[in-house]
Amino acid sequence: MSEIVAEELPQHPIFVLSGPSFATEVTRGLPTALTLAGETGGENLAQAMSSTTFRLYTTDDIIGTQIGGAIKNVLAIACGIVTGREMGENARAALITRGLAEIVKLGVGLGARSETLMGLSGLGDVVLTCSSPQSRNMSLGIALGRGESLASILSSRSGVTEGISTATAALGLARRHGIDMPVVSAVDRILRDKASIDDMIAELLARPLRNEAA
Amino acid sequence: MSEIVAEELPQHPIFVLSGPSFATEVTRGLPTALTLAGETGGENLAQAMSSTTFRLYTTDDIIGTQIGGAIKNVLAIACGIVTGREMGENARAALITRGLAEIVKLGVGLGARSETLMGLSGLGDVVLTCSSPQSRNMSLGIALGRGESLASILSSRSGVTEGISTATAALGLARRHGIDMPVVSAVDRILRDKASIDDMIAELLARPLRNEAA
Repeated sequence: MSEIVAEELPQHPIFVLSGPSFATEVTRGLPTALTLAGETGGENLAQAMSSTTFRLYTTDDIIGTQIGGAIKNVLAIACGIVTGREMGENARAALITRGLAEIVKLGVGLGARSETLMGLSGLGDVVLTCSSPQSRNMSLGIALGRGESLASILSSRSGVTEGISTATAALGLARRHGIDMPVVSAVDRILRDKASIDDMIAELLARPLRNEAA
Repeated sequence: MSEIVAEELPQHPIFVLSGPSFATEVTRGLPTALTLAGETGGENLAQAMSSTTFRLYTTDDIIGTQIGGAIKNVLAIACGIVTGREMGENARAALITRGLAEIVKLGVGLGARSETLMGLSGLGDVVLTCSSPQSRNMSLGIALGRGESLASILSSRSGVTEGISTATAALGLARRHGIDMPVVSAVDRILRDKASIDDMIAELLARPLRNEAA
């Protein structure tokens, strides 16, 4: 998004605000901490926009701050599938961890810093969205996991489920940078190619054991 | 623990197995992924111990693999307090993110790699424990957050709530390495000094705004 804004509004400073924030909680004054990214001047803007319960942490990593908020929606669909299929909390925690490792690899390939993706706009937002069964993306995954078809789920919804198109877009970026994203790829194949959920789970579980950092 | 084992059993190879794993789910054959740390030979042991649904990822970071499983219990108490006081999901997600950043700083100070702490034995275990209101440490925090006293909570329990002594031990290590751990310190002051929960929350929210990576 920041690249599009820069094209449309050249010479304007660009800031990105992202992180774990259900709007209803923010309006109720409940504590919320977010990342504010910008090239310069972010500290002043953060001071001006913050309150006691609305805390902005600054960074100059504009690209990194945008990646978590987008790709978390794909992970939320994956976590929904695991929840809908009653695969357990161990599996969901592992999926969040390995999924976030994919997001970090993609982000670093695009020029982001891994610290940003392990911060509020990455890890924080992933934890929030992947623990909220009522959120659009996770609830889509839950319905898929229970055996509903994508077409029937979408026909009963009016809102947009961002994760569907984000999965394809993220994979395009990953391919261009030679990055392997097995979790995102499995979600995309379930959504686009009508791949069987059980086959995709079996494929993920059949991947070779490896070094965790690899 | 690995240092004690090395003292007691010199010349023996040491391996550490840690990660997000409710035992009841493991015994039911639900998918579980863990970190297996050891100096050499971990790949063979991982192959021997793994099954389709029980997957071990290897690392040589023995210290890093032990830190998450210990300090997550302190974070779980903190997340319980936030849950018991009904401070919202935004606050819990921020607490997990900033708390894990403290764990990473301590781990790196002790010679661990940050990737390990962002893996299954760190992030993965934190996500599992901090989302499980029925777990010992989080349930203690929930009761504290609702206003019960520590003495009355402990008098009605038989099991050990590890996070209580871990908070003090972690702070001792942090002090020796010059590392700031505001979340762990707030939990320790609530538990040991009977500090008021509202005062500790106000103190955390009054900390100066800063760069997220600082």
